[in-house]
Amino acid sequence: MRALLLAHGRFGPVTAKTAVCLIRYRRGDVVGVVDRDRAGKDAGSFVPEAAGLPVVASVGEALKLEPDTLVIGVAPIGGGIAPEWRPDLRAALEHGMTVLSGMHTFLGDDPELAALAQRHNAKIVDVRRPPRERHIATGEARQIPAIVVLTVGTDCSGGKMTAAVDLHREALRRGLPSAFVATGQTGILVGCDAGVAVDALVGDFMAGAVERMVLECAARGKRLIWVEGQGAASHPAYSGVSVALLHGASPDYLVMCHDPSRHEKHSFPGFPTLPLREEIALNEHLLKWHTGGKVVSAALMTPNMSEAQARDAVARAQLETGLPTTDTVRFGPGPVLDAVLEASQNLTRKSSPPYAVKR
Amino acid sequence: MRALLLAHGRFGPVTAKTAVCLIRYRRGDVVGVVDRDRAGKDAGSFVPEAAGLPVVASVGEALKLEPDTLVIGVAPIGGGIAPEWRPDLRAALEHGMTVLSGMHTFLGDDPELAALAQRHNAKIVDVRRPPRERHIATGEARQIPAIVVLTVGTDCSGGKMTAAVDLHREALRRGLPSAFVATGQTGILVGCDAGVAVDALVGDFMAGAVERMVLECAARGKRLIWVEGQGAASHPAYSGVSVALLHGASPDYLVMCHDPSRHEKHSFPGFPTLPLREEIALNEHLLKWHTGGKVVSAALMTPNMSEAQARDAVARAQLETGLPTTDTVRFGPGPVLDAVLEASQNLTRKSSPPYAVKR
Repeated sequence: MRALLLAHGRFGPVTAKTAVCLIRYRRGDVVGVVDRDRAGKDAGSFVPEAAGLPVVASVGEALKLEPDTLVIGVAPIGGGIAPEWRPDLRAALEHGMTVLSGMHTFLGDDPELAALAQRHNAKIVDVRRPPRERHIATGEARQIPAIVVLTVGTDCSGGKMTAAVDLHREALRRGLPSAFVATGQTGILVGCDAGVAVDALVGDFMAGAVERMVLECAARGKRLIWVEGQGAASHPAYSGVSVALLHGASPDYLVMCHDPSRHEKHSFPGFPTLPLREEIALNEHLLKWHTGGKVVSAALMTPNMSEAQARDAVARAQLETGLPTTDTVRFGPGPVLDAVLEASQNLTRKSSPPYAVKR
Repeated sequence: MRALLLAHGRFGPVTAKTAVCLIRYRRGDVVGVVDRDRAGKDAGSFVPEAAGLPVVASVGEALKLEPDTLVIGVAPIGGGIAPEWRPDLRAALEHGMTVLSGMHTFLGDDPELAALAQRHNAKIVDVRRPPRERHIATGEARQIPAIVVLTVGTDCSGGKMTAAVDLHREALRRGLPSAFVATGQTGILVGCDAGVAVDALVGDFMAGAVERMVLECAARGKRLIWVEGQGAASHPAYSGVSVALLHGASPDYLVMCHDPSRHEKHSFPGFPTLPLREEIALNEHLLKWHTGGKVVSAALMTPNMSEAQARDAVARAQLETGLPTTDTVRFGPGPVLDAVLEASQNLTRKSSPPYAVKR
């Protein structure tokens, strides 16, 4: 893949989450960023990890980079196709590029874009399009001989996908039979052992979809399964998706993800991000009658902070929660993984620890 | 409407919820029940409220009742079209009847049935088909000058729709500007001021859909809005829908609905119906940072109990919860409505009680 990341007016560490995660986890597959407001600069001026990638104003201007794929790199509320993207979507299809979209509104169902794709033999992939099969959850993921860890959070875009991917990669590095289950568009694009955009499923089938993915990973011999959470149990708009994941994944442990610079929920003024302890209590309460799963660690997201501020934030979160805390991107996922592995050695509900701890 | 209610093998107080509710709330529109296992008997032998309605074996045999509508009267898990229904669905369409379905699988998308409907100029209405417009919740329902009451529960099919309809009708009888917001297929079929089958919406848009309906009712001058809840916050498969309703409806008060004869969740062995106090605590926890709404009353569903058993169950629930309790069908919704009206007189968060209490 030689991907261009579309992020008009929004290329930055928080506002272009999909773009940034592709740069972080699939750097070798990305050739440039399309953002007319930031064109002409190095992408590293806006997102340090993107250093070396050019920002261009349009797909037309990016052709010299020989792209074969255009990825919509932002995730606006509601997931519609912004009118300002159309010229670039058209240009990409006219040049026979593959267009990857995680929007709720499917590009493949747009008459103009679908016709263009057909005419130019280009491919549109709607990552959020639900699978044909639909399942009602049964609760059987509680019984599998694998440890399931769900990343939860105090808000949307608070590092849940990132933490899950970082933890999975670190577990693989340590030789553990680990799997990553993606539940959102970005996680699927980044690469996963199983993935469905759960927020795009019909409500009744959300828990069943994640449960099925967990069962599949366990059946394939995975013994440490990281599930990407969505939203927040306290979120006024997305809590339904968050809670469906809590009950569908049947996690043994939770990792609480949080952006300490955020005091209100992103785009929801008047809705605070809860104190960590409160969001932890709410999530554990929701699992009390299910798996009894507990939060064993916290993962902060600190891209807008200095190193010293980030260390301070980690220390304060650790004090508030009494849990091992880190920023998996900045300081590595080690402490969180250690906390999960240590807790799982004492998990009596499942017959025995499903793997030996190697560090 | 002259409706036949399709309920093969399942006509009974709990297993044919949609049929029973149509009989209860739209008795004048129902002409018979189709259930081949119970054919030839009076429907009242299985559901007391249905006394006087004939049970027949098939739509063909029911033509003498001059039906113009066939309603699928059961709600199986997963919401698929059972193969055994097909002969009757075909027969109804061939006789030009309207077919009303609340299944997840849309009859209108079934090639055979759609073709039959067209050929015979018959109508298929898929009650669960989502509206074209989709909204992300904003939380604004917290601000409206109306009291919002959501019925919640310890399980599916535990009386949430029934309680909401009974409370709404009693409020109207007392002259209050009341509205009923339906969120499931049966509520919509029974009749409502606004209705969307929320469990058939894409996850991200569930809370927004119920919020929009509440706002619409308030805009139309309704000051007491009863919202039908779904599932249970503790349910392993449907909690996502339940919690989306909790946050989307932004209720001031909750009514906890419960079937005291049920100790496990219906069709989910190994998943207990929580003790009332525990389910109440979980729901209130989920609202703590939202509206702070509290459970003010409990409504039991006791169709399988004797009168004495039911009175005993009500007394015990009242003792356990410390809340006014009733069975709205058996003993009337008065005590629950009184509890809501009394609580709302002291609601300082909204400027003033939005209506005068008349009893």
